[in-house]
Amino acid sequence: MSAIEDAVEFARENREQFLQELIELLQIPSISTLPEHKTDIEKAAGWLVDELEELGFEEVRVFPTAKHPVVYGQYLAAGNTAPTILVYGHYDVQPSDPDELWESPAFEPTIKGDNLVARGAADMKGQVVAHLKAVEAMLRTSGMPANIKYIFEGEEEIGSPNIEEFIRSHQELLSADFCLNLDSGILASDQPSITYALRGLAYFEIRLQGAQGDLHSGRFGGVVDNPAQVMAHLIADMKNRKGHILLPGFYDAVRPLTEDERAELAKLPQDSAWWQEQSGAHELFGEEEFTPTERASARPTLDVNGFLSGFTGEGSKTVLPARAMAKVSMRLVPDQRPERVEEILTAYLEENVPSTMTWELINHSSAPPAIMDRDHVAVDAVSHAFQNVWGKAPLYTREGGTVPIVAYVQEILGLESLLLGFGLPDDQIHAPNEKFHLPNFYRGIETYVHFIHKLAES
Amino acid sequence: MSAIEDAVEFARENREQFLQELIELLQIPSISTLPEHKTDIEKAAGWLVDELEELGFEEVRVFPTAKHPVVYGQYLAAGNTAPTILVYGHYDVQPSDPDELWESPAFEPTIKGDNLVARGAADMKGQVVAHLKAVEAMLRTSGMPANIKYIFEGEEEIGSPNIEEFIRSHQELLSADFCLNLDSGILASDQPSITYALRGLAYFEIRLQGAQGDLHSGRFGGVVDNPAQVMAHLIADMKNRKGHILLPGFYDAVRPLTEDERAELAKLPQDSAWWQEQSGAHELFGEEEFTPTERASARPTLDVNGFLSGFTGEGSKTVLPARAMAKVSMRLVPDQRPERVEEILTAYLEENVPSTMTWELINHSSAPPAIMDRDHVAVDAVSHAFQNVWGKAPLYTREGGTVPIVAYVQEILGLESLLLGFGLPDDQIHAPNEKFHLPNFYRGIETYVHFIHKLAES
Repeated sequence: MSAIEDAVEFARENREQFLQELIELLQIPSISTLPEHKTDIEKAAGWLVDELEELGFEEVRVFPTAKHPVVYGQYLAAGNTAPTILVYGHYDVQPSDPDELWESPAFEPTIKGDNLVARGAADMKGQVVAHLKAVEAMLRTSGMPANIKYIFEGEEEIGSPNIEEFIRSHQELLSADFCLNLDSGILASDQPSITYALRGLAYFEIRLQGAQGDLHSGRFGGVVDNPAQVMAHLIADMKNRKGHILLPGFYDAVRPLTEDERAELAKLPQDSAWWQEQSGAHELFGEEEFTPTERASARPTLDVNGFLSGFTGEGSKTVLPARAMAKVSMRLVPDQRPERVEEILTAYLEENVPSTMTWELINHSSAPPAIMDRDHVAVDAVSHAFQNVWGKAPLYTREGGTVPIVAYVQEILGLESLLLGFGLPDDQIHAPNEKFHLPNFYRGIETYVHFIHKLAES
Repeated sequence: MSAIEDAVEFARENREQFLQELIELLQIPSISTLPEHKTDIEKAAGWLVDELEELGFEEVRVFPTAKHPVVYGQYLAAGNTAPTILVYGHYDVQPSDPDELWESPAFEPTIKGDNLVARGAADMKGQVVAHLKAVEAMLRTSGMPANIKYIFEGEEEIGSPNIEEFIRSHQELLSADFCLNLDSGILASDQPSITYALRGLAYFEIRLQGAQGDLHSGRFGGVVDNPAQVMAHLIADMKNRKGHILLPGFYDAVRPLTEDERAELAKLPQDSAWWQEQSGAHELFGEEEFTPTERASARPTLDVNGFLSGFTGEGSKTVLPARAMAKVSMRLVPDQRPERVEEILTAYLEENVPSTMTWELINHSSAPPAIMDRDHVAVDAVSHAFQNVWGKAPLYTREGGTVPIVAYVQEILGLESLLLGFGLPDDQIHAPNEKFHLPNFYRGIETYVHFIHKLAES
């Protein structure tokens, strides 16, 4: 038998045992946002440490951060010529409330048909354990042909406040060929998929000030400019009613979608009706030259996230406001850069804010877009693994959102990220009755085995 | 001596007494907004009742309302052929806080130089007592040649919640030839003025809803329309950056300013620098075909009073909002009607709100504009009175704001209102150290005497 077959057979023989281990981890309510679960966080981190040590990983350590620790462990025995993968996961979970909506207790994992129901099952202890068990299956049989460095974060569900600093201060430790991010999913249990791109983010707040204080709209209406109206003009002129962004130069760096990529995206089972159902919008909006899926993931966009000016309580108050504030963010695609977008927006404001107003631009957060070449050996290896395990070629998907860890890994470590996990769209993550599809768990283990072997061959 | 000279002489001989009576009324802290001053409100109402009864007025009554009472009294002895004036004033005052900023206690009236310092001195017990004392001076000498019906409100400083209902249910009682509203002022102690017009108001709230709930801007940005941006487009297209309102038909009913009226308004000591100083705006804005004074009082305008959508707290939240709300109000001039403006705005929204949004238009408040013909006998009588007492012709001013009582009197009773009071722009009304200029008090009494006599002659 081949090394792959050995490992797969081991995994199949140990399914019951692997499931029990996942259940064990799920029984720990490692809720990162609730201080009373601090010891559970430590317990989950400890579970991972034990696991890594049992697997023979080295440098297994719990790195404290300002809040919850990062668990690290490395396996470098595959040697210098083998690829080194930085594998990211998180061991914290969302709170379980409202508990009364759970059909079985959130931290008492329960098998229901094909699913394992528990908080954290899909997001993402199931993915973490699947990967660890793939590694175990290889190490216990013919060995693992790649090097692995794990980082397991304990703060993902509270916005990863300390991961950037951790990565920045451990660059050498984390050096690798690319990053495999396990916090992901596939389109359907019978349709594997690979997320190879994420949009970036440039999130700003624009503040305008006209008069020194709020004025009476009867006394001064007609002679004093209104910052809410100036803001309305500025925003209206940033993006037209066809969904085109009008900021000069905004699209300059956008890498055009190739016909090939468009053809791939068109295979996704996401038509307009699907997008309407997912969003709850009675009608879609956007650039008609692109499909909804392209618009939501492969095209940049600009949205107002918040707008505040003047009197917003019940009833009426005849105020001519002195100030207006708008939060405006852009989702970016390759090869746009958040820094360049800030220059573009600044130039737009310099050009267009009238002299009746003073203005301020605040940059709240930014992350570059991320894309992995679909010809990358890792992408090819995943595709190969899916075909072997699922008997079906994966579809290629791009995510419209921004995953900060992917941006940090790219910015600080210079590594591309491949997202590979086995969650499903209906897994109810962050909600009651979160579940993980057990066939995905088992096939996920085998997929990781195939993936690592194929990668090592490349 | 003429009847006027008799009355004026009586007024001059009794200045000290009249001042004491004003002080007496000012000592009553009739603060309408504070429940603990309810007995003071009643005391001030009682003071007016006593005063009217002493003057020999008839039907003197305290009409209870849902909150604070209206004091009524009439003098109809001038007979059927004499003019009947409905005189409006209010006896409630603003709170005095912050008390520590008063140089003398708010309810211990103190003479400082030419001024009487006390809460309510200018707004508006000083105006009320000046008028009562003019009436007294006539009644105690050769008699009063006009009929007078007083209404004194106790809720003006809390937004007159019950005055409309009072007027509506006492239409016959309040019938008159026109209304004299004492709640007013003049431009400067050496420059009398007549306010002959007020702008109307049409105040709306526009609500837009896109998706059913807030969405993630990463996941749905590009396929779901954004109500904050739709609102920005709607608002931007309502008024351009030159100050012109673009709602179709909005200006149709605007009565053009005559060259004569523009010449009168140009005499007002209100240049751009004055408007800048008054507003605290570092630069003015508006229709360049009109002077700032015309724009602020004789031209209609449109302002956003409030705008709210999405996330408006500190920092960033990547929400694609489901809803946006804007409060939008128009100040109206003759012969615009708030009902017609509502039709115009409704038609605009029907035409321009995209099909991605549902919308709602709420009418929060409306009042027609008010204007008294400058050739009206009452205007002529005031002008005559000013020239006799102040030795100077008055300037004609229009107010940019809206006085609800003027609208009610016009709508319900069909009466035009003339605003005639003697406050000054620096009287600090609603602020610490409110004062009333005593020479204005004394000249005000004489002006009312001359006015009533001249009116009766006309």
